[in-house]
Amino acid sequence: MAYRYPHSLNELIRYLAKLPGIGAKSAQRLAFFLLNASEEDAAGLAGAIIQARKTLRHCPRCGNFTDDDICSICADSRRDAGQICVVEQARDIAAMERAGCFEGHYHVLGGAISPLDGIGPEQLKLVSLFSRLQAGQVREVVLATNPTVEGEATALYIAKKIHPLGITVSRLAHGLPVGGDLEYADEATLSLALAGRKQLSF
Amino acid sequence: MAYRYPHSLNELIRYLAKLPGIGAKSAQRLAFFLLNASEEDAAGLAGAIIQARKTLRHCPRCGNFTDDDICSICADSRRDAGQICVVEQARDIAAMERAGCFEGHYHVLGGAISPLDGIGPEQLKLVSLFSRLQAGQVREVVLATNPTVEGEATALYIAKKIHPLGITVSRLAHGLPVGGDLEYADEATLSLALAGRKQLSF
Repeated sequence: MAYRYPHSLNELIRYLAKLPGIGAKSAQRLAFFLLNASEEDAAGLAGAIIQARKTLRHCPRCGNFTDDDICSICADSRRDAGQICVVEQARDIAAMERAGCFEGHYHVLGGAISPLDGIGPEQLKLVSLFSRLQAGQVREVVLATNPTVEGEATALYIAKKIHPLGITVSRLAHGLPVGGDLEYADEATLSLALAGRKQLSF
Repeated sequence: MAYRYPHSLNELIRYLAKLPGIGAKSAQRLAFFLLNASEEDAAGLAGAIIQARKTLRHCPRCGNFTDDDICSICADSRRDAGQICVVEQARDIAAMERAGCFEGHYHVLGGAISPLDGIGPEQLKLVSLFSRLQAGQVREVVLATNPTVEGEATALYIAKKIHPLGITVSRLAHGLPVGGDLEYADEATLSLALAGRKQLSF
């Protein structure tokens, strides 16, 4: 006759425990916080989840999150359309933008080549990247995939494909801690990494 | 021209950052997780928050969370109605029940006496506690407020009030780490604390 939480409390804890970095105890703590929180905070969070899922889509050009036809970066005519920074995930764009050191456009791959996870080049948004490059306006592609084995392999794969097009290809400098995650890099490290980027030559 | 997230993404991050223990970076990480999660997980979490807020109420007898007229502990006729364990918060009941060492009923105070926070005895659920005690069925009250200054002061205050009624009053033994939080005590410590409870005499 072990004590069980009421069903709806159990359900809330179960869903909270699915969040990354939230264990069973933290999920319980969050659940009790949400039950005691103001109506505005609790209903607000639930509504924000639903609203974000409904309104946010991927920018058809670069893959960034947007609630408009095209993302604010692609729509900004003051940015340099001659530079494309290639990142693994949409969240990496925010990390680059916080560093404030890049004025060009972006392209989100949606991941990195990882044979162990069954992700090959065909799973990445490469067709749309190369159709952007073939439009002829792009002078340089900055490869800003994560400084991991998968990210490096992806950068090398893309660099080799771009080379015949005569477009400069560069890679963020290794100032980034190897094995890390672009999303958590601090602004200074990211700025240094962009400044020290190296052209890939064959 | 700093980059800004789309509005609905900003809102989602803002609400997530209100959760306890979730900072700005964690809120971003959770937001991107929720955007990439399955529809079942994301809508499920939003629905679980709303559902829990809608169906869960406080048990009119003890103050525990319940989605029924009365909580499952008060409704369980196999439990000893002669013992009442007094706790600060409803979540503390779950901690006691996980330890599995108490077979009586509970009473939730809704806090502890804390003059600095403007919480006096009149802000706690004491009227309902004493009307339960005056019904005459209760032999013992176990005071399981937190082992903090406020919890000790609350226990002492209640003990003095109960003493004239001729009901045994006990306090969880100090096996609990002082300054800690009942919610995070492990099962073994809680069991020892209950076994070593001491009768308060005057």
